[in-house]
Amino acid sequence: MIPYIAWFDYAGVALFAATGALTASRKQLDIMGFFFLAILTGVGGGTVRDLILDVPVFWVQQQAYLVVCMATAVGVYFTAHLVESRYHVLLWLDAVALSVYAVVGAHKGLQLTGSPFVAIMTGAMTGTLGGILRDVLAGEPNAVTHKEIYITATVLGAASYVVMRMAGFPVFADAAIGGLVAFTARAGA
Amino acid sequence: MIPYIAWFDYAGVALFAATGALTASRKQLDIMGFFFLAILTGVGGGTVRDLILDVPVFWVQQQAYLVVCMATAVGVYFTAHLVESRYHVLLWLDAVALSVYAVVGAHKGLQLTGSPFVAIMTGAMTGTLGGILRDVLAGEPNAVTHKEIYITATVLGAASYVVMRMAGFPVFADAAIGGLVAFTARAGA
Amino acid sequence: MIPYIAWFDYAGVALFAATGALTASRKQLDIMGFFFLAILTGVGGGTVRDLILDVPVFWVQQQAYLVVCMATAVGVYFTAHLVESRYHVLLWLDAVALSVYAVVGAHKGLQLTGSPFVAIMTGAMTGTLGGILRDVLAGEPNAVTHKEIYITATVLGAASYVVMRMAGFPVFADAAIGGLVAFTARAGA
Repeated sequence: MIPYIAWFDYAGVALFAATGALTASRKQLDIMGFFFLAILTGVGGGTVRDLILDVPVFWVQQQAYLVVCMATAVGVYFTAHLVESRYHVLLWLDAVALSVYAVVGAHKGLQLTGSPFVAIMTGAMTGTLGGILRDVLAGEPNAVTHKEIYITATVLGAASYVVMRMAGFPVFADAAIGGLVAFTARAGA
Repeated sequence: MIPYIAWFDYAGVALFAATGALTASRKQLDIMGFFFLAILTGVGGGTVRDLILDVPVFWVQQQAYLVVCMATAVGVYFTAHLVESRYHVLLWLDAVALSVYAVVGAHKGLQLTGSPFVAIMTGAMTGTLGGILRDVLAGEPNAVTHKEIYITATVLGAASYVVMRMAGFPVFADAAIGGLVAFTARAGA
Repeated sequence: MIPYIAWFDYAGVALFAATGALTASRKQLDIMGFFFLAILTGVGGGTVRDLILDVPVFWVQQQAYLVVCMATAVGVYFTAHLVESRYHVLLWLDAVALSVYAVVGAHKGLQLTGSPFVAIMTGAMTGTLGGILRDVLAGEPNAVTHKEIYITATVLGAASYVVMRMAGFPVFADAAIGGLVAFTARAGA
């Protein structure tokens, strides 16, 4: 994987893991609940993406992703009470995480299938499924029925990445713009 | 894939996509919510089937399926308000969709594993999982606890297909009878 | 698979299938509902494990697992009314099932990847996901938010197995101890 994208990838996993851990904190779960929701949210979307693209699941290949999720869970466990509104932090983290992860998903989908259409699908899937799994398991309203802007933002971010990539711009610029488009769509709503 | 079955397949995807879009309409989602639920419901069951059978996921291979889902979503978006009772239309579409899709799933399972038992499983899975995913995400009562007849109908339809297929009848007849059995079981309940 | 582990595996599937069937009984579903929840709970966790480890799904290879689930469903269907408190039986069966299945999952993960970390993940996953799927579909409180001890118990059981296995103890002892640790953690809570 191109180094820029690898950084995006780790950042996306850590950010989603943090939203999972914050959800665990709001539900007053114990540390195992933090680990579970951090890992599920952190790697859930990417796991489904890899299964569908028929490539080895990323965290089985590279276990550092699990370490990132667990370290994030521990960090949130010891600091969440310091935050005035965990819900607001969660919303902003979610916005950044989906922006980053939509780009990573689109990159992987485009690289493996060459199809812009599948790339937008894998981008949207990677950016939304982790959060949807988290919300379904935690019994919270999920993105599909309550926050459709999440889906719109990931689609726009993934599409921007794909269009720029196919136009021949360097990957770093594509990823930055794609992420920015997704974040603007989400934050501006 | 045998042409008859390919037509069944596209029809099943379109019908399930329509039920997803109708659910989006009942929940008053925006167009992205229509796309999401149409695609999830349209290809969800078949995706799990393909993962379990360890074959390439059908819509990654043949992107026309995604186009069918999206076109269906757009069509429902502009016409759903014309329908007097979206819920009744949804119920009937669901009945036809599961009948069609149970046969497709059974066909694919039988062809790939040669096992009638697995074929009935993949038929039932393909016919019910898309709708279950849709209902869980939309927060509606799902087929398992509220509409067990869905499961019964897909099992009967898939089993009819498998029995006739193994008895050597032509695929088209098997598929027609299988679909009819599933639909009768569902509609007659 | 080593014979001891194969027995553990069948026992885990049957026990989880029984909890699924008991849930169907509490929800007063018909026999198809029993089959569906027994199969989903019995093979659900192991199916996700196999997909993630990229090996053929165990029940597609060996259909006896499906027969075990269905026989268990029939057995529970005809006897559940004899039990004074189905909920208590369900809780105990769940405790045994997760203990057994965490060990099987850890064994398979360790054998296939050689990584203790992934093995603990697959153990925890195999031990909890079937029950989580069952609870989400049946609309009951799930393990993540209401019974975190389930997760803790599977992690402890899987970790004990992995540590003893890597220390070179015979598989049977590792599995017995791993299962006992998980069960003690669950039952003692």
